[in-house]
Amino acid sequence: TKLAESLLDICVLGMGFRPNGCLASPQETLMGKYGDNSKLIYELQDQGGELLALRYDLTVPFARCLAMNKITNIKRYHIAKVYRRDNPATTRGRYREFYQCDFDIAGQFDSMIPDAECLKIVHEILSDLQLGDFLIKVNDRRILNGVFAVCGVPESKFITTCSTVDKLDKMPWDDVRSEMVGEKGLSPEAADCIGEYVQLHGGLDLIEQLLQDPKLSQNKLAKEGLGDMKLLFEYLTLFGITGKISFDLSLARGLDYYTGVIFEAVLLQQENDHVEESVSVGSVAGGGRYDGLVGMFDPKGRKVPCVGVSIGIERIFSIMEQRVKASGEKVRTTETQVLVATPQKHLLGARLKLISELWDAGIKAEMLYKKDPKLLKQLQYCEDTGIPLVAIIGEQELTDGVVKLRVVTTREEVNIPREKLADEIRRRLEPCSLSVQSCLTL
Amino acid sequence: TKLAESLLDICVLGMGFRPNGCLASPQETLMGKYGDNSKLIYELQDQGGELLALRYDLTVPFARCLAMNKITNIKRYHIAKVYRRDNPATTRGRYREFYQCDFDIAGQFDSMIPDAECLKIVHEILSDLQLGDFLIKVNDRRILNGVFAVCGVPESKFITTCSTVDKLDKMPWDDVRSEMVGEKGLSPEAADCIGEYVQLHGGLDLIEQLLQDPKLSQNKLAKEGLGDMKLLFEYLTLFGITGKISFDLSLARGLDYYTGVIFEAVLLQQENDHVEESVSVGSVAGGGRYDGLVGMFDPKGRKVPCVGVSIGIERIFSIMEQRVKASGEKVRTTETQVLVATPQKHLLGARLKLISELWDAGIKAEMLYKKDPKLLKQLQYCEDTGIPLVAIIGEQELTDGVVKLRVVTTREEVNIPREKLADEIRRRLEPCSLSVQSCLTL
Repeated sequence: TKLAESLLDICVLGMGFRPNGCLASPQETLMGKYGDNSKLIYELQDQGGELLALRYDLTVPFARCLAMNKITNIKRYHIAKVYRRDNPATTRGRYREFYQCDFDIAGQFDSMIPDAECLKIVHEILSDLQLGDFLIKVNDRRILNGVFAVCGVPESKFITTCSTVDKLDKMPWDDVRSEMVGEKGLSPEAADCIGEYVQLHGGLDLIEQLLQDPKLSQNKLAKEGLGDMKLLFEYLTLFGITGKISFDLSLARGLDYYTGVIFEAVLLQQENDHVEESVSVGSVAGGGRYDGLVGMFDPKGRKVPCVGVSIGIERIFSIMEQRVKASGEKVRTTETQVLVATPQKHLLGARLKLISELWDAGIKAEMLYKKDPKLLKQLQYCEDTGIPLVAIIGEQELTDGVVKLRVVTTREEVNIPREKLADEIRRRLEPCSLSVQSCLTL
Repeated sequence: TKLAESLLDICVLGMGFRPNGCLASPQETLMGKYGDNSKLIYELQDQGGELLALRYDLTVPFARCLAMNKITNIKRYHIAKVYRRDNPATTRGRYREFYQCDFDIAGQFDSMIPDAECLKIVHEILSDLQLGDFLIKVNDRRILNGVFAVCGVPESKFITTCSTVDKLDKMPWDDVRSEMVGEKGLSPEAADCIGEYVQLHGGLDLIEQLLQDPKLSQNKLAKEGLGDMKLLFEYLTLFGITGKISFDLSLARGLDYYTGVIFEAVLLQQENDHVEESVSVGSVAGGGRYDGLVGMFDPKGRKVPCVGVSIGIERIFSIMEQRVKASGEKVRTTETQVLVATPQKHLLGARLKLISELWDAGIKAEMLYKKDPKLLKQLQYCEDTGIPLVAIIGEQELTDGVVKLRVVTTREEVNIPREKLADEIRRRLEPCSLSVQSCLTL
C-alpha cells in the first residue's frame, strides 16, 4: 500500500537527522524576521505562561534548528503547515492555516551554484505541474541597496525603502514614488533616481549595462551583486532555463532576512482565456539567499549561508481547482487500480481472499465493504471514482481458477488465470505509471 | 526530483477534500475524549483570549472534521505531528512533539469488513518494516463490558474498571486486583470474576468457548462482541494473518472513545538476542472502532461509524535506530543515484550541463557545490554518503561525446555514450527500485 511505502520512506529518512524545526517557538525567535508581516504571527500562551508563537513560515524554524544542532551543511525539503493571523480569502488561496513547501541548501559553497539549483528546481516544478506560462523574476538585495546608496538614500532607510519598492507589482510607479517621498521621507531626487533603476528588467544584456553604469559600478555592494548575477545567468544558461528568467530590479521581497539573490515566480495570464482571467493568485513561489539568519540563533554568532525557495502550494491548489472546475473534467483523488467485485451472493470470502492476494502483490485494490453488493453497484462505484479495472470473481471463475478482468471504460472483459492477475493489471496500467496525470484524469 | 513528485502527488490529492482536521481546536473539542490522558493535552491561549489546545492525536480532529463537513463515507491516511504535555523520554521514543500516522475507515458498512482491513494493514506494515516478530492483540469493548456486567460491576464503573484492566501489560494481576478492590471500590468477588476472564487469550477456539460460557452468553453486549469477533477471525483467516493475531481479553486500551473492536500491536522480544533486549518500546500500533465520536461533534448527533489505526512511527524510528547502531551498518538518508564529477579544473560548466540533462531525464543526481573540487574529494563524498554511481566528465570525455560511469563499490569504470547515460544509470540501479531497503543500506 501507499501508506506502507510512505512509512518506509519516512522511516528510512527518519534515521538521519530531521532538520525541520518546531511548530511553536518562543515568540522572540520569530520577531524581527518578517518585517511588516510580523503582525500576522499567531501568538499563544502555554500553561507555564510562556509566550509562544506558531510558525509563520518554514525558513526561520529551519535556521534556528541548524543553529541549535550545529549543522553547517545540509540540503532538504519540507512540506508542512504554517500559520498566519490573517483574514482568510479562500478563493485567492489565502488561509490562516496552510501548507508551505520549502527547499533549502545550507552551507559555505562557491558562489551562485546552489542559487542556480534553486531556480532550476522552481522551473522544474512549475513546468511539471503544467500551470501554464510563468516567469521567474530575479534580483539581488545588494544591487537594490547599491541603487539606494547611489541615489542618496541614507542607510537607515534601506529596509523601509525596500518594502516600498516591493509594492511595485501592485501599485503604479507614481504611487510608489509618492509613498517614498511622503511616508518614507526620501527626497524627490532620490525617489526619481530609484525610479530610473527599478523600472528596468532584462537579461545578461541589462547586467552588462549596469556593470558599466557610471554611478552603480562605483558602489561595492552593487558591483558584487551584479557580478554574482552575471555568474547566475551563466549557470542558468547551462541549465537551459533563461527563457523564463527575468532580471527585474523592481523585485524587492517583503521579508527582512534576505541578504543576496532574491526571486519570485509568477504565473502569466494570457488574454482571451477566461479560465486564466478568473484566477488571480499572484506569485506561486519565492525565495532567496539569507546568509545571516542562522547566525542570529547561534550563541557564538557562527554563520551558515543559506539559499531557499518556498512554493505556495495552497495557491497552486486553488489555481488547479478553478481550472478543473472550469474544464468540467473529473479528477481522481485515489490511485486505486482495481476493484474486486463479485456477481453473485455469498462470495464475500472469495473477494477477501482475492483482494488479499492482490494487496500482497503490491496492487492498489479496493472492494465495497458490503457482504452482498449488487454487481451494478460495484461497476457504478468504479465509474464514479475513476477506478480503471474490475476483477470479477464468481462461482464459474472460482471453478475455473480464473478471474474476469473488466476494463471500465470499454466494458471489455477477459478471463485471466488467477496467478497471473497481478501482472496483467500492472501490464495494463503501465502507461499510467509513467504519467500520473493522464492516469488520474478520467 | 522527489520534491516535484511529492508536490504533484499532493496537488492531485489536494483537489479532493483534505479531511485532516486542524492542529489547534477549541479546548472543549478535545476534553473528555482521552480518559486519564487528558492531562497531557497542550493548552494554549490565543490573542483573542480563546482557549485552544494542540491536537493530542489525529483521531478526534478527524472525527470533528467529518462532522463539520458532513462526510459520511471516507478512507484516508494522515501522517502528522501531535502534542503531549509529557516529560520526554527520547530513548523510549516518547516526545512532546512527535509524528503519528493514522489510517481510518468511516462509514456505515457491513460488520467487521473494514475492521479486518485495518488489521491486515497493520500486519502488512509491520511485516514490510522488518521489525522482527510481532503480535496483534485484539479484543472488543463490548466483550469487556459484558464481562464487567456478568461479574457484577455497576455500569457507572465500567470505564474506570476498563482503565485498570489496561494496566495488565505493565502490572501483574495481583496488583491490578488490588487497584480494583482498593482504589476503584469493586467487591473482591467481582475482581476475582474479572480476573478469570481477562487472563484468557487465544483464537477461534477461545471465542467458541466463550460463546458457550454460561454467564457471558447471557449478556447481550458480550454476545454481540463475540459474534463479531468470530466473523473478524473468519476474515483474518482469509487474509492469511491469524498466525500473528491473538484474541486477548486483557487488552482494554486507555482511551474513552472506543465502542467495539480494539487492537494493539506489540513487538516480541526474543531471548538471547542482545539487540532486542536493549530496546523496549512497548506497543507500536493501536486502534479500534469508535462509532460515537463523530456524532459528538454533529449538531444533530448524526453518527458515522469509524474504525482506525494509529502507527507509532516515532517508536518504530527509535527501534530501527537502535538496531542500526547495534549492527554498525550505515544507513543512507538520501536516494541520490549518481554524483556528477569532473577530474580536471575549469569544468564546472560541463558538470552543470550534464547534471541538468540527468535531472531532466528523471535521474536523482548531485554534484559538489564547488567550482573546482578534487576528484578524490568527489569520490570520497560518494563513499561517505553511499551514492552508488559517479558520472565523470573530463576533457577527453567531452571530446569523445561520452561520460565515464564509475561504480563506487567495485571501482569499475566504463564509457557510456552521453545520450544513453540516463538509461544506463536506471538499468544498473534496477534491482534497487524493487527493494528500497537493500539499495539504501550500504
